Amino acid sequence: MINILIIHGPNLHLLGKREKGIYGTTDLKTINKKLGVLAKRLKIKIDFFQSNHEGEIVDTIGKAEKTYDAIVINPAAYTHTSVAIRDAVSAINIPVVEVHLSNIYSREEFRRKSLISAVAEGTICGFGVSSYALGLEAAVDLCKKG
Amino acid sequence: MINILIIHGPNLHLLGKREKGIYGTTDLKTINKKLGVLAKRLKIKIDFFQSNHEGEIVDTIGKAEKTYDAIVINPAAYTHTSVAIRDAVSAINIPVVEVHLSNIYSREEFRRKSLISAVAEGTICGFGVSSYALGLEAAVDLCKKG
Amino acid sequence: MINILIIHGPNLHLLGKREKGIYGTTDLKTINKKLGVLAKRLKIKIDFFQSNHEGEIVDTIGKAEKTYDAIVINPAAYTHTSVAIRDAVSAINIPVVEVHLSNIYSREEFRRKSLISAVAEGTICGFGVSSYALGLEAAVDLCKKG
Amino acid sequence: MINILIIHGPNLHLLGKREKGIYGTTDLKTINKKLGVLAKRLKIKIDFFQSNHEGEIVDTIGKAEKTYDAIVINPAAYTHTSVAIRDAVSAINIPVVEVHLSNIYSREEFRRKSLISAVAEGTICGFGVSSYALGLEAAVDLCKKG
Amino acid sequence: MINILIIHGPNLHLLGKREKGIYGTTDLKTINKKLGVLAKRLKIKIDFFQSNHEGEIVDTIGKAEKTYDAIVINPAAYTHTSVAIRDAVSAINIPVVEVHLSNIYSREEFRRKSLISAVAEGTICGFGVSSYALGLEAAVDLCKKG
Amino acid sequence: MINILIIHGPNLHLLGKREKGIYGTTDLKTINKKLGVLAKRLKIKIDFFQSNHEGEIVDTIGKAEKTYDAIVINPAAYTHTSVAIRDAVSAINIPVVEVHLSNIYSREEFRRKSLISAVAEGTICGFGVSSYALGLEAAVDLCKKG
Amino acid sequence: MINILIIHGPNLHLLGKREKGIYGTTDLKTINKKLGVLAKRLKIKIDFFQSNHEGEIVDTIGKAEKTYDAIVINPAAYTHTSVAIRDAVSAINIPVVEVHLSNIYSREEFRRKSLISAVAEGTICGFGVSSYALGLEAAVDLCKKG
Amino acid sequence: MINILIIHGPNLHLLGKREKGIYGTTDLKTINKKLGVLAKRLKIKIDFFQSNHEGEIVDTIGKAEKTYDAIVINPAAYTHTSVAIRDAVSAINIPVVEVHLSNIYSREEFRRKSLISAVAEGTICGFGVSSYALGLEAAVDLCKKG
Amino acid sequence: MINILIIHGPNLHLLGKREKGIYGTTDLKTINKKLGVLAKRLKIKIDFFQSNHEGEIVDTIGKAEKTYDAIVINPAAYTHTSVAIRDAVSAINIPVVEVHLSNIYSREEFRRKSLISAVAEGTICGFGVSSYALGLEAAVDLCKKG
Amino acid sequence: MINILIIHGPNLHLLGKREKGIYGTTDLKTINKKLGVLAKRLKIKIDFFQSNHEGEIVDTIGKAEKTYDAIVINPAAYTHTSVAIRDAVSAINIPVVEVHLSNIYSREEFRRKSLISAVAEGTICGFGVSSYALGLEAAVDLCKKG
Amino acid sequence: MINILIIHGPNLHLLGKREKGIYGTTDLKTINKKLGVLAKRLKIKIDFFQSNHEGEIVDTIGKAEKTYDAIVINPAAYTHTSVAIRDAVSAINIPVVEVHLSNIYSREEFRRKSLISAVAEGTICGFGVSSYALGLEAAVDLCKKG
Amino acid sequence: MINILIIHGPNLHLLGKREKGIYGTTDLKTINKKLGVLAKRLKIKIDFFQSNHEGEIVDTIGKAEKTYDAIVINPAAYTHTSVAIRDAVSAINIPVVEVHLSNIYSREEFRRKSLISAVAEGTICGFGVSSYALGLEAAVDLCKKG
Repeated sequence: MINILIIHGPNLHLLGKREKGIYGTTDLKTINKKLGVLAKRLKIKIDFFQSNHEGEIVDTIGKAEKTYDAIVINPAAYTHTSVAIRDAVSAINIPVVEVHLSNIYSREEFRRKSLISAVAEGTICGFGVSSYALGLEAAVDLCKKG
Repeated sequence: MINILIIHGPNLHLLGKREKGIYGTTDLKTINKKLGVLAKRLKIKIDFFQSNHEGEIVDTIGKAEKTYDAIVINPAAYTHTSVAIRDAVSAINIPVVEVHLSNIYSREEFRRKSLISAVAEGTICGFGVSSYALGLEAAVDLCKKG
Repeated sequence: MINILIIHGPNLHLLGKREKGIYGTTDLKTINKKLGVLAKRLKIKIDFFQSNHEGEIVDTIGKAEKTYDAIVINPAAYTHTSVAIRDAVSAINIPVVEVHLSNIYSREEFRRKSLISAVAEGTICGFGVSSYALGLEAAVDLCKKG
Repeated sequence: MINILIIHGPNLHLLGKREKGIYGTTDLKTINKKLGVLAKRLKIKIDFFQSNHEGEIVDTIGKAEKTYDAIVINPAAYTHTSVAIRDAVSAINIPVVEVHLSNIYSREEFRRKSLISAVAEGTICGFGVSSYALGLEAAVDLCKKG
Repeated sequence: MINILIIHGPNLHLLGKREKGIYGTTDLKTINKKLGVLAKRLKIKIDFFQSNHEGEIVDTIGKAEKTYDAIVINPAAYTHTSVAIRDAVSAINIPVVEVHLSNIYSREEFRRKSLISAVAEGTICGFGVSSYALGLEAAVDLCKKG
Repeated sequence: MINILIIHGPNLHLLGKREKGIYGTTDLKTINKKLGVLAKRLKIKIDFFQSNHEGEIVDTIGKAEKTYDAIVINPAAYTHTSVAIRDAVSAINIPVVEVHLSNIYSREEFRRKSLISAVAEGTICGFGVSSYALGLEAAVDLCKKG
Repeated sequence: MINILIIHGPNLHLLGKREKGIYGTTDLKTINKKLGVLAKRLKIKIDFFQSNHEGEIVDTIGKAEKTYDAIVINPAAYTHTSVAIRDAVSAINIPVVEVHLSNIYSREEFRRKSLISAVAEGTICGFGVSSYALGLEAAVDLCKKG
Repeated sequence: MINILIIHGPNLHLLGKREKGIYGTTDLKTINKKLGVLAKRLKIKIDFFQSNHEGEIVDTIGKAEKTYDAIVINPAAYTHTSVAIRDAVSAINIPVVEVHLSNIYSREEFRRKSLISAVAEGTICGFGVSSYALGLEAAVDLCKKG
Repeated sequence: MINILIIHGPNLHLLGKREKGIYGTTDLKTINKKLGVLAKRLKIKIDFFQSNHEGEIVDTIGKAEKTYDAIVINPAAYTHTSVAIRDAVSAINIPVVEVHLSNIYSREEFRRKSLISAVAEGTICGFGVSSYALGLEAAVDLCKKG
Repeated sequence: MINILIIHGPNLHLLGKREKGIYGTTDLKTINKKLGVLAKRLKIKIDFFQSNHEGEIVDTIGKAEKTYDAIVINPAAYTHTSVAIRDAVSAINIPVVEVHLSNIYSREEFRRKSLISAVAEGTICGFGVSSYALGLEAAVDLCKKG
Repeated sequence: MINILIIHGPNLHLLGKREKGIYGTTDLKTINKKLGVLAKRLKIKIDFFQSNHEGEIVDTIGKAEKTYDAIVINPAAYTHTSVAIRDAVSAINIPVVEVHLSNIYSREEFRRKSLISAVAEGTICGFGVSSYALGLEAAVDLCKKG
Repeated sequence: MINILIIHGPNLHLLGKREKGIYGTTDLKTINKKLGVLAKRLKIKIDFFQSNHEGEIVDTIGKAEKTYDAIVINPAAYTHTSVAIRDAVSAINIPVVEVHLSNIYSREEFRRKSLISAVAEGTICGFGVSSYALGLEAAVDLCKKG
């Protein structure tokens, strides 16, 4: 059975409560529930991990290979600053899919560049909660081709 | 019934024949056939348009609103150079989804910037033919949310 | 009798219908009608040409010299990307006046640089429909000084 | 009766005597006389102000609102360096039209960027003395639309 | 009673012991004691938090809203590199005041840009320990206006 | 008795009348009155100087040392363009505190760099009228340490 | 028999009539005639194609492989702006030689960078009409080495 | 007896298992063992610390001074992004030697700049495991001179 | 008899009293006296003008031509910011020699670029008071060659 | 009889022995022999000069005019760094043709800019040994037109 | 027996006599003597070469392969400007180790980039004379692995 | 008796014969003769050195200190590229005066930056042959103060 880890980056635990203009009104719990439903439909297993700590995300990616077949990650703020997460992603052998809720290309200049994209399999951004759902489908696809 | 236009940008008619290391071995006909199957499953109608001419793509986008509910576009080379296509996209009121076969962020410097992303609803890149399929699903989603 | 060609660049055929906050509510037909009235008052002849195709605009400029005494052009999106239109403008011997409806200097960074300005006689921007009227007067002036 | 202030920036008092290749042979007195004739024809009132002092131009713009309906300004060298004039222009509620004798976009790099354009209503440049005349007409237009 | 959280960023626990030429001879304990005295005089409650971990600072800011009316933060090195702290600051609804002991604008190039300033209410820098005191007063002011 | 000069840069005489979204509704007279009250409370003497002329501000700073113990300056537009004011500030031996009403770091790109900050003692920005009050306190502090 | 396609980019149909200081007095007909003579001497077959349309040039390159052994292209203005032509060149398997009449490296800044050079076999520029002749010889050479 | 701390930055715990083309096949345990042998030969004491957390590395450097005479650090990904580690290094009074396994100057652009080098005593890079050995010798040298 | 105007830019009236490390201990009066002695020896007439006002310097240069054969100017801070002084210099027909007391090329980045140099006859910098003396000799030379 | 000097820049004496992937397997002797054959066919005289010394190449160019009618130069590494060779080329009155074995535009960033191209008659690059042959023909052409 | 060439770049013959703050007080003779002692201990043979001439260093590297097993080079000023030395280094098949006495990363901006590092095996800098010793050890290591 | 060395950089031996528009018609011999006359008048001894070789100029500067009291150098093309000459200049203890015949600040972009200026005592440029004469006087001045 395909097993996928979904990583939520910094500040995503605050989702749905604030800056709703940009990130929508759905909170993280609801996103995870929706993904759970989708997982059931796709007949796969999924786990969640949220952290505000760059180091914990690096730790988690480094260990993921043993348990998971793919990672779906929303690196949030670390998208633009973390070479360490980039290195962790390129160090492991399972496919990693990068997702973003908002369209990062229509926001501040410093958000338009991702350090992760070049080492991820692919990137999905701008579809709100659907970005995660599409990312999960993409990850399953990659596992099947794998 | 939802009606979606799929636009293939310049040189995509050569797909599957060359530079297979980057773009894969599937040709455009096969992609379109696969999307046809998916459309049937999603119970939507789709049309295809391929052109090497920036002006024709601008024409087509400008007229799309009357007939279609959404556009899925792979602007290919024009991604990086066409303000005219960008203006056409932001001039119309139906959602536009940008897709790319390859991961443009791991290629030459000049391919890492998209003029279209900031005005598209969202962007999907790096999943090969699946980028189109995911883009079609995303477009259907956007149509349903309206 | 002075004979002037007015060229409308890409997406201007959509004018007045959309993005009214930036471009106003007047459509292209109305602009042309207003310019027709002004032409009558100035006792000159004018023709119109609109195209979304960079190549057609280049073709048209290259042939304009035989028939026209001056060109008034709103290059729209091609303002920022077309070296070919720039070369066409500098290849002909009749004066070319560049006009813009909106104030391009208060918009996105990439719109603040014009490839055409350096080879046009002069530039008028930011006055909405009046930019065309002022441009036509300027062109007539240049023809008279010749 | 519409009342418009025409501001000539630094070194324009030397006009017509030097650098005729760039600025033409007409001196400032003659320009003002021509504009006086045009004003009469347009049935408006105009005043002139020339200064080499950035501070005096800022003073003058700040006080203009009480007496005038619009400003036509050729900021000359201060176009490229004065945030103070920019701030004065955006602080007042009457329309400001920016004009330039020469085509600043075909000159030295540092002259191709205007700090004023983004806050002016519109910009007219490259038509020699006619830039002022067109600017005056544009200002009258803006007053009428008001 | 107004309740304010004071956050000291990375390496500030070493204060007063080293690099005294830049940061002065006062240690963190003394700063906190001085702020305690000021808090008493201003009749407010204050708490302190010091961490070298970007993630812990993000955690702390995300939870602060429940307990505190405002934050005074010296982000130290993270000023220049942390989009995650910036996002945390802009995610919460209480005012955040940024303070710096040294004048960051007269130091190395990479220290002259702050990622935090644009989302903080205001910034105070260069007054040594007094930067904190002034920041605390500013925060109290903002709470009262609230 | 400590004697401090408060310098208001260009366009600040227009304060409170316009662009209230950015600068608030308080006019310069009211600010000065508030600072007068604060000065009384702090038992210091203060004087005011407002000018739109870079040269006058340079003159004033150059002569300030004889009469004043410190300067609080809001250089406004000259913040970003005046090397002459910077040189005047670094030429004198009394402390200079830079203040700004608005948060200059969340505004246009060209406003985010200050030529004055590197030679001022410290900078306070973003707290509206309170920026001046905090600046005055900071200046008094510096005089006492002197 | 070796069969080579010679592509003339935008505005080259105006050659010999204007801007003779830069491009010389020979017109396109004469160039083609001279190349015909050379082709005869080299015992090869050549065809010509001129277009102002980026899309037509992309079309033509895409289909060239079936009929021709090599391409000699003067991309003119599209040299500096067309990723689509670049992609077409790298998509085909026959050698492409880039030629320029003028020395693009001693002209305006934006003309000194070629998007085509990196994917062409080689580049020849600055020798006027001889650039084409040398380019044809180079192409024949490349065909022979195959 | 000289006592040296060896710090391994993020992802170095994965060494020897992946990306062997860049980092070689030796794992971290083996490196530490080799360094242990060398330490014995040099008659010094060494300790190891590996972390993926920027904050933990900052903590560790801040406390190192009490126990150790020098630090040898491979900051890995944090080389390019951590001002906090830079500040920690310059805050302490014992010599710090920077080492890298790979030649960071022949890799991606963003890896060619080190924030640490300017405050370290010296830098050694590109010799694989030997970089650590040479770094240890250099540190011992510095302690002896110290 | 040759008649030369010597212009001292902003803050030079403070010379010799402050920042002696950079500008030396000689005050402006003494410099002028020394130049008076040199003028006598060279049998020329000289006048002095000092101002902190950009506008006054522009005024003075614009009128200089009637009375003087050449100008020696130390534009001080305006060296780096004044397009208006540059335009005044290039508007007049007498030679202008630029001098600087300090070596501007070994100071802050923003002082290493002069807007004046490109339009002055020549530049002399770094020799302290002798820069003026050498500048005066150079100006006399240029007058004689005239 | 036309007399042409062929200059080989630094490291070209090592040709054919190393880095064959980039420069091919032909050594310098063979190239010179081939060029000798071509010279005979073209009925011209040629000489060769190879040096690793920038100064010797400058010397040689400076003296070439007396003996030679044109120069064909492969400046190799000095292409990108030598203003002295550029100045020597523009100081002499005989035509200079720049050639490169490899396509410098598809190599490292710093190799894509040539200091020589702007002052050479024309440039030929990317055709391996044929670059020299084409360059020689181009030079003969230029001599004949001369 | 391993045979290594040590190359000292420009101005290093002046070592120990001047700029002792940066380069220390040891002169080149003493360095060479120390290295001689180390060579004896390592049981290898070493030779020295010092030159101020870029061309001579290129010559020397080009010929080194026949006699030597490795090179240790301190390219001094040529580190930052010589593509020719870079090309020579990458043309030969023996390992090259780059060393620097001072920490080039804490000096002037233009010294922080090395053209040599990317093609050397590794780089050692900042340890004074020990940089050479460590470099020699590294070279011996590389020869043994070779 | 003061003894000064005058160094002429690359291509200056060609002076007076070519590019007279920029460098004038005086040849190097005549310049040296004029300087000889001036030296006699100033009662000093002078020597000349011209070379096209960067290395020879570095050699000469390194040895100059023993024999000369000052150097006057026109580094010509090496002004913009030679860190080696810069290092030689800063390594010696006698004053070095930089001179240029032409106004380098009104020429090509790459000529407007001097690597030498920051380490020379002062710079004189734009006065043709007089630049040397003024430079010699400046050097004598510096020797006397020395």
